[in-house]
Amino acid sequence: MAFWHTDYHSPHRGLTFEAEAVLHSEQSAFQKIEVLQTPAFGKVLLLDGVLMLTETDEFTYHEMLAHPALFSHPDPQKVLIIGGGDCGTLTRVLQHSSVSRVLMVELDERVTRVSNRFFPELATAVDDPRAELLFADGIGFVRDTEERFDVILIDSTDPVGPAEGLFRAPFFADCHRALNPHGILCLQSESPWIPELGKVIGEVHRDLRSLFPLVKAYCAAIQTYQAGLWLFQLASTLHDPLAPEVGTRINRAGLETRYYNRELHYGAFKLPTFVLKQLV
Amino acid sequence: MAFWHTDYHSPHRGLTFEAEAVLHSEQSAFQKIEVLQTPAFGKVLLLDGVLMLTETDEFTYHEMLAHPALFSHPDPQKVLIIGGGDCGTLTRVLQHSSVSRVLMVELDERVTRVSNRFFPELATAVDDPRAELLFADGIGFVRDTEERFDVILIDSTDPVGPAEGLFRAPFFADCHRALNPHGILCLQSESPWIPELGKVIGEVHRDLRSLFPLVKAYCAAIQTYQAGLWLFQLASTLHDPLAPEVGTRINRAGLETRYYNRELHYGAFKLPTFVLKQLV
Repeated sequence: MAFWHTDYHSPHRGLTFEAEAVLHSEQSAFQKIEVLQTPAFGKVLLLDGVLMLTETDEFTYHEMLAHPALFSHPDPQKVLIIGGGDCGTLTRVLQHSSVSRVLMVELDERVTRVSNRFFPELATAVDDPRAELLFADGIGFVRDTEERFDVILIDSTDPVGPAEGLFRAPFFADCHRALNPHGILCLQSESPWIPELGKVIGEVHRDLRSLFPLVKAYCAAIQTYQAGLWLFQLASTLHDPLAPEVGTRINRAGLETRYYNRELHYGAFKLPTFVLKQLV
Repeated sequence: MAFWHTDYHSPHRGLTFEAEAVLHSEQSAFQKIEVLQTPAFGKVLLLDGVLMLTETDEFTYHEMLAHPALFSHPDPQKVLIIGGGDCGTLTRVLQHSSVSRVLMVELDERVTRVSNRFFPELATAVDDPRAELLFADGIGFVRDTEERFDVILIDSTDPVGPAEGLFRAPFFADCHRALNPHGILCLQSESPWIPELGKVIGEVHRDLRSLFPLVKAYCAAIQTYQAGLWLFQLASTLHDPLAPEVGTRINRAGLETRYYNRELHYGAFKLPTFVLKQLV
C-alpha cells in the first residue's frame, strides 16, 4: 500500500516522497534501519527515519566524497573510511588502481548487511581482497590505531547522537596522527543552506585549519540530501587538490563516473558567496 | 493557523514546508497568485501552487540568471527581460552601471503588483528611470518588436501552459533577431534531476545551437527549486562567457552579491557528467 514519507531537514521543511512498499525494517543495537521502494528514487535507505542513500542518486555523494581526495594524492595506497556502512564510498575507493588496502570502520554491522542485500551494486566491493570491514567505533579506532593511511575519508551521518564526535577537534587530531606524511583527510560537512546543521561548517573549518596547512571546501548537488547542496572539506598536509597534476591523474585514470569529472573537480571548489562566508 | 504546503516536483516527490499564514490569495486573469509566510523561507510566492520565489533564497536564481550574461557582454546597454514579474531579475540587471535601458515584458501585471507589495526589496527597481515595464505576451512582443537588445534574459515559469512557447525554437529565432550584433541570450532551463521536466534541456540546447555559434550551460544550487539544482543556458553570437576578461569585469564592478562571484562564474560552467549527457 502506497504512503508518503517525509525526510525533515528542519522542524519546518522536508523532502516528501511516495513509497510503494517497506522492503525492510529492523531496530539494530544502534538505530532503526529501513529500506523503502519508491517511484521517484528507487530503493531508499533510512536510518532513524533520515534518508541516507537512494538507488538513483547515491553516485553523487559517494563519488564526491571519494574521488577528489584520492586524485589529490599522487599515490594513495592505504585508505581508511570511517562510517560508510552502505559500502558506496568503499566501492569508489576501490576504483583507484593504486589502492592496495581499504579499511572501513563502521559502527553498525547491520547497516552493511542490509545495504549489501538491497543495494547489491555496492556490495561487490566487500569481496575485493583489498577491502577489510571492521565493525567498531570509529572514534576509538582512530585514537588507538598504530596503522598509518594515505587518505582518510569520514563518511558520517549528521552531527547528532553517535556521529557528533566525528565533527570534533580531538577526532580530527587523531586522524592527523593516523595519516602518513603528505596524507589527506576528507569529510562531509553538511548543507550550507540549513542553519540548524550548517553551523558545524565553520567550526569544522577552524578545527581543521588549526591542524592542517591546507584546507579547502567544495560542494556537490545531492538532490535527496538537505536542501540539495552539500559541502565537503579536504584537509591536506602537503598536496593541493587544485594543482594541475590532479587533472592529469583524473584523465589518465579514466574512471567510469556519473557525477565527477576532471573539469567538475576544479569547478566544485568555486563556492557561492554565502558559503564562503561560513568558512571564516 | 499553521499548515503544511507541498510543492510537487513530480507526482511522486516534493518540497514540503510549514506555513504560518496566507498573506495574499487571488485569481488573476492568468493564474492563482498566493503569498505564504513560512518559518523556513520567509515569504513565499506561489503561482498556481508552484513555488516561484522565497524571501530567503531568491538571490540565488536571480543573480545567476542576470550576472553571467551581463558580465559576458563587454558593454551591455539595452536589456530585455521576458517574464520575471517579481522584479528580482530586473533588480540585478540594474546593478550594472553600463545598462541604460531595461524593458521587462511580463504577461501578468498582478504578479508584479503583488510581488512589489510583499517583496519590497525587489520593488525599488520599478522606480529606476532606466526600467520600463510592459504587461504583454513575451512571445508576441519578441516576434513583433523592431527594437534591438544587447542581452535578452528569459525568466519563465516551467514549460507547461502559457510558458511552453518560451522553450521553443520559433521563439529563440525571434530572440536571435531581436539581439544587436554580438548580443547574448540567457534562459533558465529547468532541473537536470527531474526527468519529467529535464527532457527540455536537450531540446533547448539543440535549438539554441542551430541559431547561435556558442551555447554554454551552467548550474546553480537553488534550494527551493525542483531537486535543488538548476540549469541555465547562455547563447552567444560572439562573446565567450569563459573568456578571461569576464573575470576582470566582475572584479572591477564589485557588485554586492550573495551567491555569484568571479570564481563561481567560471566554476558554474563545469557540469556533472550526468548533466553533460543531457546536452548532446
